Amino acid sequence: MRAVDIIMKKRGNPTAPAGSSLSREEIAFLISGYVQGEIPDYQISAWLMSVYFNGMNFVETGYLTDVMLTSGSVIDLSGLTGPFVDKHSTGGVGDKISLPLAPIVAAAGVCVPMMSGRALGHTGGTLDKLESITGYKTALSVREFRNILSKTGFAMTGQTKEIVPADRLLYALRDVTGTVESVPLITASILSKKVAEGADALVFDVKCGSGAFMKNLADAQKLADSLAGTGKAMGKKVVALITAMDEPLGYKIGNFLEIEESMDVLEGHGPQDVTELTLLCGAWMTVLAHKASSVDEGKDLCRQAIHSGKAMELFLENVRLQGGDVPRLLADRESRRSRHTTTIRAEQTGAISSIDAFTTGLAGVYLGVGRNKTDEQVCPDAGIILKYKKGDRVNAGDVIMEVYGKDEACLDPAVHLLQKAISISSSVPDKTPLILKEITAL
Amino acid sequence: MRAVDIIMKKRGNPTAPAGSSLSREEIAFLISGYVQGEIPDYQISAWLMSVYFNGMNFVETGYLTDVMLTSGSVIDLSGLTGPFVDKHSTGGVGDKISLPLAPIVAAAGVCVPMMSGRALGHTGGTLDKLESITGYKTALSVREFRNILSKTGFAMTGQTKEIVPADRLLYALRDVTGTVESVPLITASILSKKVAEGADALVFDVKCGSGAFMKNLADAQKLADSLAGTGKAMGKKVVALITAMDEPLGYKIGNFLEIEESMDVLEGHGPQDVTELTLLCGAWMTVLAHKASSVDEGKDLCRQAIHSGKAMELFLENVRLQGGDVPRLLADRESRRSRHTTTIRAEQTGAISSIDAFTTGLAGVYLGVGRNKTDEQVCPDAGIILKYKKGDRVNAGDVIMEVYGKDEACLDPAVHLLQKAISISSSVPDKTPLILKEITAL
Repeated sequence: MRAVDIIMKKRGNPTAPAGSSLSREEIAFLISGYVQGEIPDYQISAWLMSVYFNGMNFVETGYLTDVMLTSGSVIDLSGLTGPFVDKHSTGGVGDKISLPLAPIVAAAGVCVPMMSGRALGHTGGTLDKLESITGYKTALSVREFRNILSKTGFAMTGQTKEIVPADRLLYALRDVTGTVESVPLITASILSKKVAEGADALVFDVKCGSGAFMKNLADAQKLADSLAGTGKAMGKKVVALITAMDEPLGYKIGNFLEIEESMDVLEGHGPQDVTELTLLCGAWMTVLAHKASSVDEGKDLCRQAIHSGKAMELFLENVRLQGGDVPRLLADRESRRSRHTTTIRAEQTGAISSIDAFTTGLAGVYLGVGRNKTDEQVCPDAGIILKYKKGDRVNAGDVIMEVYGKDEACLDPAVHLLQKAISISSSVPDKTPLILKEITAL
Repeated sequence: MRAVDIIMKKRGNPTAPAGSSLSREEIAFLISGYVQGEIPDYQISAWLMSVYFNGMNFVETGYLTDVMLTSGSVIDLSGLTGPFVDKHSTGGVGDKISLPLAPIVAAAGVCVPMMSGRALGHTGGTLDKLESITGYKTALSVREFRNILSKTGFAMTGQTKEIVPADRLLYALRDVTGTVESVPLITASILSKKVAEGADALVFDVKCGSGAFMKNLADAQKLADSLAGTGKAMGKKVVALITAMDEPLGYKIGNFLEIEESMDVLEGHGPQDVTELTLLCGAWMTVLAHKASSVDEGKDLCRQAIHSGKAMELFLENVRLQGGDVPRLLADRESRRSRHTTTIRAEQTGAISSIDAFTTGLAGVYLGVGRNKTDEQVCPDAGIILKYKKGDRVNAGDVIMEVYGKDEACLDPAVHLLQKAISISSSVPDKTPLILKEITAL
């Protein structure tokens, strides 16, 4: 077997039409060879570009996922009571769904081993949000992860170095070779990590819109289909939701600010959009875990978990178990704010026709909510509080946003962006749905 | 400027449609950066693959050619009388056109600075053929090259290391990354070397058929158009001929054997196909050099160069100047043969319907005419003499080929291939044209 022949098979050659399917052995030869330093990066990047152009079917993508997965260790959840169900979002602005979701679903009796990521670019990261809770530790050992999982039914950790090293190598190469935007490569990157953490079933929240990686429904649909199809090809149960990400989710964008809003959801008085999406994801997770026989029944289970107080109880117990200072969290709630602050007021009277998620997310990076490079620090207290959302009527001069920065200097560029993010029109815009599509592969 | 942005521009991204044209600066940034070790090979291979898929227009290909060209030194022909005209063939079997062509065109008053290549795979190489002349030296210094050029109007040399180093680097990378078969990349590779040797005008012989790199007319046409269009975009005059390479050219395939057949052409009694193609290439070269005002007039000039004996005189003078042993060449002619020999006889009575060029060329590699790897030696005396060609009637038992090998062991596998190469049918096949198309960019 030669790498160049595999590249040319995917690329197309006189004996194989362009985009020919690769076998498990061929994909393993390339990827395992790359991880082991036997196949040079210049061959892998040429192959990645041929995949960018000619794609991979779900079976091939499953092979790639599987080969990547086996490049490292897999979390051993044996002895714990499954099935293990997780949710993954492709990333958005104000997207704190994981935070209330995990304890709600755990309270409904589902085991949720959750591995999350960090903020990058305009999108936020669950780990950064959790770490805004004083003392909260997101780098758990497998032993700690299992222990907390067994006690509260969910645990929140970052990816360890042992998990899917192939993904880190490949992602770094894709990043500099123009091969990031490939649906099968994105699919394998996401799925390999989720399967490595031990999930048997998965709910994907594929964001679609200005603040998402996928800007339009067609692209989001391709990724959702690929995640569902590849997951199924690998013997996993997958539900892929396509949800709107044109405006931020909820009213709060920031690290600690999003913890606060998540606690509101856990108490049953969260924002309508965050609650709706949390309940839908939660319902599907209970269905996938055989705790509910329909989405409606699943939603009822999740509502009970909230109204009984059980979900909040598990959340606080998890905070304690992961090292967080619960009394301080409760004291900080609604009061801990950066002192570098300003407001944005409506420039005219009318109705808010849009608050652009992407621009708002970029402003968040300036403020310290997120980061441009993986080695940058984030600020726990920075963020944006929206006082109004799309469709709300405002009068000129009304405060539309409260803005909190990591320092004084960052406020000006952030405000400049946020002013651009807000559009006010004379008429009230049409309501747009939050849930755009549900794709199931059960 | 970042390499990844240039890759994504060619690949296509939200702000640039797939295959967007790159500027001279962008191409120079990539290629000069690569040659200088500043841009890593994994970015270049991803870019090469994006060019494979999305192509380059003639202007871009001209930029690439120009940037490659300036990666090394350019032969200085100042002081010599131009215009300088050369011919390049994409490679075939029995293709010895350069050998009689250069002295014929020189005899017609055109200065021909010729840089040639070596045999590789099933195709032969002019340098290997010349070196079969005892003493003939093909590695000339620029000073020697200029000196011989000024005396005989043509000189034959190999590419020096100083000429287009970018091409060697890029070709080695393309070879292992599945990016060889790209018309703009092939074009830039060929053109950069030809322009570096000082040519003002060029005749390309784009071979088409089983024994050629381009197997069908559509592919050959793309390459011919690209060579002509890119050459024109660079201010060069270019004629691209598409010629048949389904059966070997002439009756002799080998190194010294092809020297002999070339001398026959120089004496006016060469094979019809070799003579026809030599005269057509020669005629175009005289037109490009303003020595003739039409192809017909150019052919007449070339015929005169043959019949006056001037072309042969220049050939022998060149052999002498390049270190060759002229008396020995004349003594060896028609007598120097490998002692490892056999024949191939007709298995049935009928008409030869084809002698497959590719299979014959592969047999030649076994015999020692060519090589599979660039560091292998060739055998000057090995080769094949065809006694019949396509369309000729044969009786069962007639000798169709004389076969000469570098050793005894190579004869069997070569014969096995050659038997496969020959097809005999009951009816005489239709005549097929040698010259398939002429593309001019003047």
